[in-house]
Amino acid sequence: MHGTDPQAHGLPGFVGGTLDRVDHIRSNPALHAQAFASPNARLLVLEGLEPVTDDHGLALVPLAADARIEQHVLLGVDLQDRPIFAHLVETLEQGPNATPRSRGLADLVSASDVALYGTARSLVHWHARHRFCSVCGAPTHAHKAGWARRCESCASEHFPRVDPVSIMLAEHQGRVLLGRQHSWPPGRYSALAGFIEPGETVEEAVARELKEEAGISVHSVRYVMSQPWPFPSSLMIACIAQCDDPALTLDETEIEHAFWCDADGVAAALAGDPDAPFLAPPRMAVAWHLLDHWLRGAVAPSDARA
Amino acid sequence: MHGTDPQAHGLPGFVGGTLDRVDHIRSNPALHAQAFASPNARLLVLEGLEPVTDDHGLALVPLAADARIEQHVLLGVDLQDRPIFAHLVETLEQGPNATPRSRGLADLVSASDVALYGTARSLVHWHARHRFCSVCGAPTHAHKAGWARRCESCASEHFPRVDPVSIMLAEHQGRVLLGRQHSWPPGRYSALAGFIEPGETVEEAVARELKEEAGISVHSVRYVMSQPWPFPSSLMIACIAQCDDPALTLDETEIEHAFWCDADGVAAALAGDPDAPFLAPPRMAVAWHLLDHWLRGAVAPSDARA
Repeated sequence: MHGTDPQAHGLPGFVGGTLDRVDHIRSNPALHAQAFASPNARLLVLEGLEPVTDDHGLALVPLAADARIEQHVLLGVDLQDRPIFAHLVETLEQGPNATPRSRGLADLVSASDVALYGTARSLVHWHARHRFCSVCGAPTHAHKAGWARRCESCASEHFPRVDPVSIMLAEHQGRVLLGRQHSWPPGRYSALAGFIEPGETVEEAVARELKEEAGISVHSVRYVMSQPWPFPSSLMIACIAQCDDPALTLDETEIEHAFWCDADGVAAALAGDPDAPFLAPPRMAVAWHLLDHWLRGAVAPSDARA
Repeated sequence: MHGTDPQAHGLPGFVGGTLDRVDHIRSNPALHAQAFASPNARLLVLEGLEPVTDDHGLALVPLAADARIEQHVLLGVDLQDRPIFAHLVETLEQGPNATPRSRGLADLVSASDVALYGTARSLVHWHARHRFCSVCGAPTHAHKAGWARRCESCASEHFPRVDPVSIMLAEHQGRVLLGRQHSWPPGRYSALAGFIEPGETVEEAVARELKEEAGISVHSVRYVMSQPWPFPSSLMIACIAQCDDPALTLDETEIEHAFWCDADGVAAALAGDPDAPFLAPPRMAVAWHLLDHWLRGAVAPSDARA
């Protein structure tokens, strides 16, 4: 029996935001200015792209007296009716990848704070990388409370990117395909994944990635769940696909090794068993939850977790 | 009983591509040059962004003797082992929206040809709008067989955009919510939709859009299907959500009117009945198929179609 609640073991990281994104304020300069001037307004403190925490969760401080509205994005209004802003930067001193500090945030703050941080991180990164117009090369400036940029020359509007990624388990006779990249920690295996391209469905992208990276053909692709992944701004779309012929042909530039793992092995890895056949992805990654979802639906694992 | 095959009444437009996207060739300049020089290579003919057809389907012609590889994107290799290219343009004479000619393509050519055209259209549009580096403003050039652009100054790589959009039916007691925008043809109603933003899941975006545009709260969001929509480069993610309180508060800047429609009304509209309570979206749109999926799963419509 397949489990029906993908959240039975908690949420993946960055899921569960509670901010009201206040679309009606973004596009209304008067309401935007009023939110920025409100005594309730708060700045989400970041160090570069990194999160900062205090005893209450993410560090939120009043806006500085000389803060300039055009250098901030209005993330939304929180459950305490506070407009929450993030400060835009012109240069980034780090790349887009997750760091130990950003990966560890879920152990320190609530799920909704992790989601708030993820939203801020994606937007701050996007602004810093879009200071010029891709159409004509002229400077752009923040627009619509930071939810767009507008070209100062050709007036083109540009909107924050969200890059959909398919991440998938192929299933064959009670086993799922796990792979590892060369750069990962020793023993770590996870679901395969890749960016969805123009002109394909989620399901077509799942099939293409598995063919490219593992040389297998799949069918009956089933959507399981999604997750925003702010490194820098992906939307992970997690699926399970059926495979009839398990013979692998790996793309060794992408995948160092891959194998078909049974439910006992997946259960041991998710439980953190040192004798498990692989080191599971971190619980904040949607891959952990995809494996957990599959395990709860897998037919008769001989030693399923409670 | 919910239907299990979302394709029982054909595919939405742009779904069902059969091109091999040959990732291994894109990143290998020697293989790329070999494909471009192949006597099998074909140019997909476009007029601006518009499709061109002949008796065989989409017009495909040999590459001109003076064609330059850097002005083309390698779309992939077709089932007849022909490398298919599209010509990149520097300026666009039309906007990104669908035209009668592009919307009508599905009546003229196969589903895989429609998908091929959609892929080409999204990529040609993206290249024309990304001639400059968003990081530093310098010119960029096509890279990786047209699947990236690279900055000539700061060496940043830029990849084609795919913008995920949630498109959804809210369901309440056997009825679904349909809305219309001011600009649509008289009588046309469809599913509500909106871009997924950084920091939210597909499901969170569905709930946000319905709250913003119709003032309703939903739960139990269920994924149904996806579709690439090349105007200019969306990924439509179609869902059905449950609503307990049907009282509507419309965002009248986005939605001119909305109403809850029962299965009989949806069935009549999809059948093209002139007495139907609304004019259905075109069959190439995923909204048509989402309505059809819902109808086949709806409980006991009194006059369901065969």
